[in-house]
Amino acid sequence: MKKRISVIGAGSCGPETEAVAERLGVLIAQNGYDLVCGGREGVQRAACRGAKSAGGLTIGILPGLEFSQANEFVDIPVVTGLGHMRNFLVVKNGDAAVAVEGGAGTLSEIGLALKSGIPVVAIGRWSGIEGVRPAAGPEQALDVLKTLEDR
Amino acid sequence: MKKRISVIGAGSCGPETEAVAERLGVLIAQNGYDLVCGGREGVQRAACRGAKSAGGLTIGILPGLEFSQANEFVDIPVVTGLGHMRNFLVVKNGDAAVAVEGGAGTLSEIGLALKSGIPVVAIGRWSGIEGVRPAAGPEQALDVLKTLEDR
Amino acid sequence: MKKRISVIGAGSCGPETEAVAERLGVLIAQNGYDLVCGGREGVQRAACRGAKSAGGLTIGILPGLEFSQANEFVDIPVVTGLGHMRNFLVVKNGDAAVAVEGGAGTLSEIGLALKSGIPVVAIGRWSGIEGVRPAAGPEQALDVLKTLEDR
Amino acid sequence: MKKRISVIGAGSCGPETEAVAERLGVLIAQNGYDLVCGGREGVQRAACRGAKSAGGLTIGILPGLEFSQANEFVDIPVVTGLGHMRNFLVVKNGDAAVAVEGGAGTLSEIGLALKSGIPVVAIGRWSGIEGVRPAAGPEQALDVLKTLEDR
Repeated sequence: MKKRISVIGAGSCGPETEAVAERLGVLIAQNGYDLVCGGREGVQRAACRGAKSAGGLTIGILPGLEFSQANEFVDIPVVTGLGHMRNFLVVKNGDAAVAVEGGAGTLSEIGLALKSGIPVVAIGRWSGIEGVRPAAGPEQALDVLKTLEDR
Repeated sequence: MKKRISVIGAGSCGPETEAVAERLGVLIAQNGYDLVCGGREGVQRAACRGAKSAGGLTIGILPGLEFSQANEFVDIPVVTGLGHMRNFLVVKNGDAAVAVEGGAGTLSEIGLALKSGIPVVAIGRWSGIEGVRPAAGPEQALDVLKTLEDR
Repeated sequence: MKKRISVIGAGSCGPETEAVAERLGVLIAQNGYDLVCGGREGVQRAACRGAKSAGGLTIGILPGLEFSQANEFVDIPVVTGLGHMRNFLVVKNGDAAVAVEGGAGTLSEIGLALKSGIPVVAIGRWSGIEGVRPAAGPEQALDVLKTLEDR
Repeated sequence: MKKRISVIGAGSCGPETEAVAERLGVLIAQNGYDLVCGGREGVQRAACRGAKSAGGLTIGILPGLEFSQANEFVDIPVVTGLGHMRNFLVVKNGDAAVAVEGGAGTLSEIGLALKSGIPVVAIGRWSGIEGVRPAAGPEQALDVLKTLEDR
């Protein structure tokens, strides 16, 4: 089984954050990881689009019970009906998580990941939280992910 | 997105039931469906083995939080940490479910499927439950599944 | 902590089934048990009404996230947001379960209870399921519950 | 139905934090609220002890499936089997949440609360998170809670 990286972040965002997420998705696929995310919009969709453009596999852990909630770049949608509790499954279905900006939902994912032993790399807003590994951008995030694997 | 069939049934079983489940997995893949199951042993493992032998894709919705819970024929393991509640996600991640024998866990999946609008075909033990469509074996189960799609 | 009995059954029902559920609620309270249910209508509401009329305590494990989902005889509503998965919590929050008629949802609760070691007594429709203890009515259901406790 | 306050915070803590949590529990009960918490140790247990000493009602939303997980000051234990996902139910079963110190688990509860519209007051560590209302101690936390109700 390939290693998986969970991408978490803003559910709606501007073009700059989207570009960061898309580049992150490209790098995740190019480095041989599968991509896990919440399957929806904003950072999730941009990261999936990036991963697909580089031939990667994308798994979307959806909050609701309808496959149609998934964005068009999700290969494997998984319905949960768990609402915000599905945030835990987004991070637990990866081997590590990368946050790109985001609000309270992303903060909850960071807390749940740290609590349950999933390493978290953050670009932007939440990079100062204790226990989170900060990264200046997608390239540096991948560098941190590789460091984690070497251990 | 391809249609998906959830296979539910005994978590441990003898060679006859296993042969039925494996044949069911083969037919599911040959008919162009992805296979969803609980990702573990018995009927789940046999059905996955069948689907893989016919070039299909297998998704395993696991009760725990460890990928290692999945049998070796699962392509996409999904951890849930939901224990028996994951039974609901096994059936809701398919478009229809086929039961092969099974005990109380399978019964709960049948109840959850029927309650939430997922058609259920049953081979063996639970085929007499009201609302369940009985099938004599894997071939007939596939016939019933096709009838459902035509509607 | 007092022993708890979970009452499961039809979400909407006629006056006869309601009378059975209400009488069951009365007996549960009179015998010193707390009552757990799904907190909503039909058998759940009637059983709560019975328990309250006899001075009992009622706990309602709700499918959604709004306290207002609870019927007016629930003392302690608990929101879950789990939808049908909350059925598992209805039975696991009791020491035993009593089913009064009911459809596929009740069937799923019976399966989940049996799977996870919760004894099930059934009045009416599902009393013939293997592993379920049949009871002719509320009084006999209480007799069976006492037998369980003596073990 | 009485208003409910969820108390979240460190699962194990020193005597100073415990004293803060216990005082908070006393004030919650004295002000006519029911207390909701995760039902276990540290801040949760101290807050329950405080609430009980002032005649309050305590509800413990447990991560596992055993009632014995609850501390001795929990009146109504609720098993969930959801592990860390139960954090969401701890905050959603209250009308507002008060955090007393705490680590990544508490952070996840804060994120989940803010995301789903539950106001959060924090004493200590997490009081600087955007969207959280800081309080210097239990008395001030109650003042903030009353402000929320007046709106």
